[in-house]
Amino acid sequence: MAQAEFWYEFASSYSYPAAMRVEALAAERSLALVRRPFLLGPLFAGQGWRDSPFNLFPAKGRYMWRDLERICGALGLPLSRPNPFPQNSLLAARVALALDDALRPAFSHAVYRAEFGQGRPIDATATLGPLLAEIGVAPESLLARAVEDSNKAALKAQTARAIALGLPDAPCLTTVDGEVFWGNDRLEQGLDWARAPGLAARKERA
Amino acid sequence: MAQAEFWYEFASSYSYPAAMRVEALAAERSLALVRRPFLLGPLFAGQGWRDSPFNLFPAKGRYMWRDLERICGALGLPLSRPNPFPQNSLLAARVALALDDALRPAFSHAVYRAEFGQGRPIDATATLGPLLAEIGVAPESLLARAVEDSNKAALKAQTARAIALGLPDAPCLTTVDGEVFWGNDRLEQGLDWARAPGLAARKERA
Repeated sequence: MAQAEFWYEFASSYSYPAAMRVEALAAERSLALVRRPFLLGPLFAGQGWRDSPFNLFPAKGRYMWRDLERICGALGLPLSRPNPFPQNSLLAARVALALDDALRPAFSHAVYRAEFGQGRPIDATATLGPLLAEIGVAPESLLARAVEDSNKAALKAQTARAIALGLPDAPCLTTVDGEVFWGNDRLEQGLDWARAPGLAARKERA
Repeated sequence: MAQAEFWYEFASSYSYPAAMRVEALAAERSLALVRRPFLLGPLFAGQGWRDSPFNLFPAKGRYMWRDLERICGALGLPLSRPNPFPQNSLLAARVALALDDALRPAFSHAVYRAEFGQGRPIDATATLGPLLAEIGVAPESLLARAVEDSNKAALKAQTARAIALGLPDAPCLTTVDGEVFWGNDRLEQGLDWARAPGLAARKERA
């Protein structure tokens, strides 16, 4: 079964619509999807940024929020800006990584619905605990596992791999032949690429 | 007849595929298209950038060149990086603005083909003169008109309007109801929006 890796950051605005629709798009194409939560902070720090580029560059920020309104409107997704933006996503990413693979999609959807659908903070156990309970996971033990050293190290390693793969931002899809597709608007293209035979030939043609 | 404005910058890499296909997409939708060449330099300067963000932020630059290869490959457009990138596009923008509206598309295509299709410089009359001749325009008088004060002022005013409209970058489409769509990958969406009735209702739903 062909596969693709989906890289997402809970604080990232465009990761919201992408994360909400990527499983369905992968299933339509009979693709196995590996979910890779990671942190944009270290990646942005490497570009000299200590905040979201949507805050650092206001024209891009204003555009993004209107663009996201149109995208969510077309998808029928609620949109409510979290305050502050971006949210501190460290704990959510650790929790997502600590979960069994099979539970990661439902948890990720729940976090994004709370954060960008309802504008709620996602930085505290007070929010994340009930979201875990909602998907049938006992919050206390999972939240404890999330902050164990081995899980913290795993998230660092995953973020380091995102940087090594050359991801420019989030969300991204990566394929086994080393292609990177950045953005909610590249999901279909990236998944089509992951599934298509003759990738090498297509790369040469391009 | 519904209309949209297409904002492009000759130095901009993603403006290349967008400019090559925007007339056909507008014609399919029976839309009148107003071409707006402008300069990204003043817009970027407002964000503190004195170079292309694709040079300032290498991860984004590496991604862009590979993404553009895939896009051009899929469209059957040749791609050859101009050196240096970005090219100085001031003269090309002035010439495009000085031309009659009806000649602007053909000239713009010719500039992009030379610059990103063949990797040739576009900053000098030695390149732009023959491109004008190619589309049936006498180079000397047009190149003289391009550097008249009134034409220089018109380009400044057009660039100032791009900033006032909130364009985050190039290429962009703008619609009469004030929407901005940024990127080669938003052309279809922007043109569909420009054509559709009931825009206000759609905006409220979004």
